[in-house]
Amino acid sequence: MQTWHLTNVRPLGGAAVTVTIQGGRIAAMSAAAPPAGAVVEDGAGLLLLPAFIEGHTHLDKTTFHEADWLVNTVGPRIIDKIDHEREWRARTGHDAYAASLAMARAFLAAGTTRIRSHVDVDTLAGTAHVERVLQTRAAMAGLQEIQIVAFPQSGILGRQGTEAALDAALSLGADIVGGLDPCAIERDPVKHLNIVFDLADRHAKPVDIHLHEQGSMGAFSLELILERTRALGMEGKVVVSHAFCLGDIPEGERDALLGQMAELRVAIATTAPASRPVPLVAPCRAAGVTIFAGNDGIRDTWTPYGSPDMLERAMLVGLRNNFRRDDDIALAFDCISGAAASGCGFGDYGLAAGARADLVLVDARTLAEAVVARPARRLVVAGGRVVARDGALVV
Amino acid sequence: MQTWHLTNVRPLGGAAVTVTIQGGRIAAMSAAAPPAGAVVEDGAGLLLLPAFIEGHTHLDKTTFHEADWLVNTVGPRIIDKIDHEREWRARTGHDAYAASLAMARAFLAAGTTRIRSHVDVDTLAGTAHVERVLQTRAAMAGLQEIQIVAFPQSGILGRQGTEAALDAALSLGADIVGGLDPCAIERDPVKHLNIVFDLADRHAKPVDIHLHEQGSMGAFSLELILERTRALGMEGKVVVSHAFCLGDIPEGERDALLGQMAELRVAIATTAPASRPVPLVAPCRAAGVTIFAGNDGIRDTWTPYGSPDMLERAMLVGLRNNFRRDDDIALAFDCISGAAASGCGFGDYGLAAGARADLVLVDARTLAEAVVARPARRLVVAGGRVVARDGALVV
Repeated sequence: MQTWHLTNVRPLGGAAVTVTIQGGRIAAMSAAAPPAGAVVEDGAGLLLLPAFIEGHTHLDKTTFHEADWLVNTVGPRIIDKIDHEREWRARTGHDAYAASLAMARAFLAAGTTRIRSHVDVDTLAGTAHVERVLQTRAAMAGLQEIQIVAFPQSGILGRQGTEAALDAALSLGADIVGGLDPCAIERDPVKHLNIVFDLADRHAKPVDIHLHEQGSMGAFSLELILERTRALGMEGKVVVSHAFCLGDIPEGERDALLGQMAELRVAIATTAPASRPVPLVAPCRAAGVTIFAGNDGIRDTWTPYGSPDMLERAMLVGLRNNFRRDDDIALAFDCISGAAASGCGFGDYGLAAGARADLVLVDARTLAEAVVARPARRLVVAGGRVVARDGALVV
Repeated sequence: MQTWHLTNVRPLGGAAVTVTIQGGRIAAMSAAAPPAGAVVEDGAGLLLLPAFIEGHTHLDKTTFHEADWLVNTVGPRIIDKIDHEREWRARTGHDAYAASLAMARAFLAAGTTRIRSHVDVDTLAGTAHVERVLQTRAAMAGLQEIQIVAFPQSGILGRQGTEAALDAALSLGADIVGGLDPCAIERDPVKHLNIVFDLADRHAKPVDIHLHEQGSMGAFSLELILERTRALGMEGKVVVSHAFCLGDIPEGERDALLGQMAELRVAIATTAPASRPVPLVAPCRAAGVTIFAGNDGIRDTWTPYGSPDMLERAMLVGLRNNFRRDDDIALAFDCISGAAASGCGFGDYGLAAGARADLVLVDARTLAEAVVARPARRLVVAGGRVVARDGALVV
């Protein structure tokens, strides 16, 4: 791959620089002009951002690519949504490859080059969805890094064979062991978590657990997760997704849990939903806990909302946290960039020499404007290659 | 104005019809083809929506049109924001005409043809901002209806002369009497509300009061507002903006207040903020109370957020209320359409013969998709004229 220079771009709204890109990486960021005769792309004074990270989504579930609009008539409880989705998927023969590929490409066009996707593993589908998303990962190789969480959406304990399917999914290439509401859905938190952490230990892979449970029940499940993280020496290898309980337990209890999470380097993935208590960014960061963001599902049987535009997710994080000051909005952006890289373990990330050249240009004066106005992606660079212009993929 | 036909459009996602437009109004909506030789615009099977309503904004305050990004470093309290804004406005000579005109035009391009704008009236600015927004209203006449609330943003009681300025603003053409947190800001709720309702009574104009107060204090202020509404026979003439207290008092107390509001036809304007308790759409509607939506400020000293795209506000209402089903998302859309017309008193509204021909076409399969995806406005019709194509004004 040839060396080239992206000139006249303003990193996070700062003074204009030239980015030199060599071997797919940022070789230098400098105020100096490129040498005569060099290959140059004119950045036209646009705002330069590191490409974005989607920290929690479900690529396999989306109907984003489908011809017909999916009319949502589902009931209000989580179990309604789980049961309805399994039935719908079997009935329609939903194609998790077409779905995940279309979604991954839409993310790339909008400037997202790293994705953590939970992918359903259950006794009906077995490892089929993981296999399909592995195909998508192969198709996107070199452009987008996709982490796959083997996710027991229908629970492990109630359906004999799920543990074996998870085991198989991890052997096939899933990167991370998923889990789900150990009390509220699984009804036996110790047994559920022992299976999840045992799988992680045997495969030497990290854990990412959906914890929708609220209040003291959620805090109890979280304590059990933290105990196992400590016992297995899995510091820095565990993410708790949603962690709604951290939004509605007393602050003192919350801060005690956050203190343990910081010590064990357990991170939080949040979608920053507007309609319920959630872990807020400021207290998590104050405690030293990494918190990052994702859409959760996009246009699926769970929800019609969501967007491949991670700047929109940053805006929703900002709105949920009442971040109005520019310095606060930078924290919302961190949830889809640096903090997400750190929480998910994506390496070589950022706007610095040595990092992978994953870059986004937008027409905005400041970082805060990029978040609140979500301007079109003028240029997206992935692994050192221009992959999209004006919102459309060129690869 | 000649008669013309908008063919092959799907009202709210229904079967395709032809809309006949005559004298600026909808003359008919019919499955029949237009007569031979008629003037026709091909709607290409796009989704037809009634043009949108912004029910609560501050056109005078925005920096939407300014060359420089306004860096927000303001403190967290409401009074910090009030004091900072007054100081900033005086220091910068902020031009409320340029601001409001740019904002109104951006709203029109995005399909909004009716706006209720609060406009600051205080002892420093006097009626200047109202005069400037009146200029904008004149500039937009025939295209956009703008209601002006004479709004005492800095309070009435602490600044001698504000009442006289409000009186003058109403004489100049402001349509509605504003008010502000009778306890928390004004410190004398009876005195404040008596002035507000006395101005309304003398000018025979409606009232729209900003009520940020939470919990029992907010409920107390709301009771005082309802008492005065009843005493003056102002049924159907009062809006309470924000009404945060209805989101955090016990449900029994909330429902008692909602019952009185329904009886007195007092409506609620909400921005559906994600970061605090708010009146929810379902209990308000169940009680028979009209609730509608607005941005509040857009890119001003209070907040960097907000957008002239009212479909985005409908999405935020949907997210705040956890509306996932298509039939629920239709309620979120009602907050920027029918319910807003009813709450603000905009007449001749809707997709029906006799209504003003204020129409929007978007590329979406269903109403729910229009709300969650917020597609570009392919065509905007205002007062029977095509005013925007593909997001750009043509007038």
